[in-house]
Amino acid sequence: MNKELWALKGNLVWAEKAGEMSMLPGGYILMEGEEIKGVCDKLPEDYADARVEDYGDSIITPSFSDMHLHAPQYPMMGMAMDLQLLEWLQNYAFPMEANYAREDFARLTYKKLAKELISRGTTRVCIFSSLHRKATNILMDELEAAGITGYAGKVNMDRNGGVNLQETTEESARETRLWLEENKDRKLVKPMLTPRFIPSCTDELMEELGKIAKENPDLPTQSHLSENLEEIEWVKQLHPDCTHYYQAYEKYGLWKDGTVMAHCVYCDEKERKAMKDAGVWAIHCPDSNTNIASGIAPIRIMLQEGIKVAMGSDVAGGAKLSMPEAATDAVRVSRLRWLFSGKKEDFLTVADVLYLITGAGQEYFGAKPGFGAGDKLHAVVLDDSDLAYNPFITLDRRLERIFYQFSPACVKAVYSVGVKRI
Amino acid sequence: MNKELWALKGNLVWAEKAGEMSMLPGGYILMEGEEIKGVCDKLPEDYADARVEDYGDSIITPSFSDMHLHAPQYPMMGMAMDLQLLEWLQNYAFPMEANYAREDFARLTYKKLAKELISRGTTRVCIFSSLHRKATNILMDELEAAGITGYAGKVNMDRNGGVNLQETTEESARETRLWLEENKDRKLVKPMLTPRFIPSCTDELMEELGKIAKENPDLPTQSHLSENLEEIEWVKQLHPDCTHYYQAYEKYGLWKDGTVMAHCVYCDEKERKAMKDAGVWAIHCPDSNTNIASGIAPIRIMLQEGIKVAMGSDVAGGAKLSMPEAATDAVRVSRLRWLFSGKKEDFLTVADVLYLITGAGQEYFGAKPGFGAGDKLHAVVLDDSDLAYNPFITLDRRLERIFYQFSPACVKAVYSVGVKRI
Repeated sequence: MNKELWALKGNLVWAEKAGEMSMLPGGYILMEGEEIKGVCDKLPEDYADARVEDYGDSIITPSFSDMHLHAPQYPMMGMAMDLQLLEWLQNYAFPMEANYAREDFARLTYKKLAKELISRGTTRVCIFSSLHRKATNILMDELEAAGITGYAGKVNMDRNGGVNLQETTEESARETRLWLEENKDRKLVKPMLTPRFIPSCTDELMEELGKIAKENPDLPTQSHLSENLEEIEWVKQLHPDCTHYYQAYEKYGLWKDGTVMAHCVYCDEKERKAMKDAGVWAIHCPDSNTNIASGIAPIRIMLQEGIKVAMGSDVAGGAKLSMPEAATDAVRVSRLRWLFSGKKEDFLTVADVLYLITGAGQEYFGAKPGFGAGDKLHAVVLDDSDLAYNPFITLDRRLERIFYQFSPACVKAVYSVGVKRI
Repeated sequence: MNKELWALKGNLVWAEKAGEMSMLPGGYILMEGEEIKGVCDKLPEDYADARVEDYGDSIITPSFSDMHLHAPQYPMMGMAMDLQLLEWLQNYAFPMEANYAREDFARLTYKKLAKELISRGTTRVCIFSSLHRKATNILMDELEAAGITGYAGKVNMDRNGGVNLQETTEESARETRLWLEENKDRKLVKPMLTPRFIPSCTDELMEELGKIAKENPDLPTQSHLSENLEEIEWVKQLHPDCTHYYQAYEKYGLWKDGTVMAHCVYCDEKERKAMKDAGVWAIHCPDSNTNIASGIAPIRIMLQEGIKVAMGSDVAGGAKLSMPEAATDAVRVSRLRWLFSGKKEDFLTVADVLYLITGAGQEYFGAKPGFGAGDKLHAVVLDDSDLAYNPFITLDRRLERIFYQFSPACVKAVYSVGVKRI
C-alpha cells in the first residue's frame, strides 16, 4: 500500500546533542504516512502535489518527553510544598495514592492528566502509577487514548507505605506478573518495572523483581536514586553492605542499560561512573528537587562525563506539568549552582535543555534526536503570536521566550506517532 | 448621596502579617459603593436587600501588588536568560528600552502589558518606565485605563546607558520636573522618582534628584539595591566614600520612609538596619535573582528583623508576570536557602508569601492588609474548578495549589478601587 506523502512547514528547531541547537527557518518536514522522510528547505519534486500543513511563522520542535512523573499524585500538584521528601510522602503522597483502589477515581484523574499532558506537547513518558494493577491499566488506556506513548509502571512497595498503601511481597510479585501478562500486546504504552524506591521494597521483593527482569529481558526498570540526604542515609541503614545507593539496585540485576533513575541529586563520582558504565539514565527533575528541598543536581557535570540525562516533571514533587517549564527550571537552578560554585561549574543553556526535553527522550525510545528519517513523527508546533510584539528577536531567542512564557496557549498542534492529536 | 450597599460572597482568605493566613469560608465582604464596610459570615440586616455577587466555592483574596517591574522590558520577557545583570543590561535591556522614543511602540506594548497585569489579578504596581517622558505618560494612561493603580517612574540615567539610551544631566532633571508637572493631578497612577541605579546616575544628577525629592515631600523614590556582586563592587568604585551601597542613595536624601529598593540580595546587617531605621522597603524578586544569577535574598532574616518586605515580578529580569508565580518562586528559593544554610535559616511558606504579594502592597499604599473597613476594595476571585478533582483538600491547601498552578484561567474576577475590571 502506498502511504500518503505530505509535509509540515514552519521554523524547524531541534537539538541533536545538549548545547547544539539546529535551526531551519521556513523548513519542511517531509512525511510518508506516519514516518519522517527528511527535512529540507524546499519541497522536492515528488512532493509537488503533496498536502502541506503550513504553520507559517510558528516554530516546530520535536515533541516533549516527560521521563519521570507520578500519575496518581496529579490531584495534589502544588500542595504541601512546605514539607521534605519523606514527610511529604507519608502525609500526602501515600494517602493520595491509596485512593486509586477506586477505579472511578483513577479513570477521572488519568483521563484529565492524559489530556493535559498532550495539550502541553508531551507525547512520550516514563510514568509511575500506584501499586494498583487495575488503576495502572486504566492509566495506560487513558494515555494511549490521548495519543501518548512510552512506559508506565505498576508500583511495587511492600513496606513503609502505611496501612492503606502496601502490598505483601507475594501480592506484589503476583500482581506484577499478572499485569505484565495483561499488557504484553500493548504497542503504545508498555509496562516498565517500577520498584518505588529502596525503602519501599524488602530484599525479598527486590529478589522477585530481579527474577521478573531476568525473565523479561526487554522489560526496563524505573526508580529513584540519591534524591535526598535523609533518604540516602536510610538506604545505607537498610543495605549496610552497599557503599552506594545504586548498589541496592545493582545487586538484584536492575542496574542496567535502559534503567531510568529519577533525581540523582547526590550521585558522587563513583555512582556517576556506574551510571555511565551500565547505560543507566539520570532523570533531572529540578522543580521537585527545589520544592521538597532536595538540592540541585550536577547536570552539567553529568553531561560532561557522558552520562545519559533526560528530564521529568516529577509531578507531584514537581508542580508544573509542562516540559518547557521543567526546561527553564533546569536553566534556573543551574544558574544558582554556577553562582554557588564560584562560577566554576558551567550553567545550562536553552540549547542544552531543548535537547534534554526533546532529543534525550527520542534517544531513549530508539529514535534519532531531531527529525530523523525513518522515525515516526513526534512534533509540537509552538506559536508566539500572542506574546508581546518584539520585532528585534532572533529564532533561537524566540524559542527561549516561548519556553520561559510557556502555557498550553502556545501549543498550536501536537503530532504523536505521525498523527495530529491537538 | 447614598452609595449602594452590595456584597461579595466566597471563601475569603487573606494575610494581615507574613505567616498569618486568615480564612472565612463562605464569607461576605460588605460593600458601600467602592468601599469595604467589613467582612462577616452572615449578611447583617441592613444588607437584606443588597445585591450579592456570589462566587460560590471560589476563593477571594486581596488583589496582588507587583512592587518592581520594568514596563519597557516586557517584549523581552524570558529572553537572554543566559547572561548576568550587567551584560544583560548592556546587550538586551538597554537596546530594547531605546525603542520607547517611539510613542507607537510604547502604546502597543503598554496597552498589552496593562491588560496582562490586570488579567492576572495585579491592581497595584511600582513600575519603571524608560527615560522617555512621553512614553512614561502613555504607560500611566494605559495602566489607569486597565484599572491599575500605584506609582510609575520616568527613569533617570545620564551615564552608562549606551548611545541611544542616555540623557544629559540637564535633560534628565528638566524632563523629570516637566513630567512631574504634567502628572500632578493624576489620581490612580502617580509619579515616583526613579534613578535607575547608582551606576546610571552621575553625582550631579543624584544631587538634582535629591533637590526634586526635597521640593516634593510626597514624591517617593524607587531604585535598585545590592542585587549582584559585580554591581556592588562597581558602586563602591563610584562612591569610595560609601562603605555600603545604600549610602549612595542616603547622601542625596533619597533613603527615607516609603523608598522602595528592589532585590536586596546582599544587604548585610548594617544595610538591613539602615532599611529598618529609615522605613525603606525591600522588594523581593526571586525569579529575576535566579535568572540573572544574582543570588537568593535573605527574606526570612529580613522579616524576622522587622524590615518591610514586598514582592516584584521584576519583568524582564523576571520572566513571569503573575504574582502568585513570584510568590511560589519565593517559597522555592527559600527552600534552597534553608537547605544550603544547613537547615538553620527557616524557609518561607504560602502564608508568608500570601502576605508578601497582597498585604504588604496594601500597607505600602496606605490600606490595611486584608479586607479593611474604610478601604477601597482591591480583590481577586480565584477559581480552581478546572484543576484536577481532589476531594481531600483543605482551604489553605486549595489556595496553595492555585498559586503553584496559577494561570490567568484561575482568575474569575478582579476588583480594583471598588470596581470590577475583569
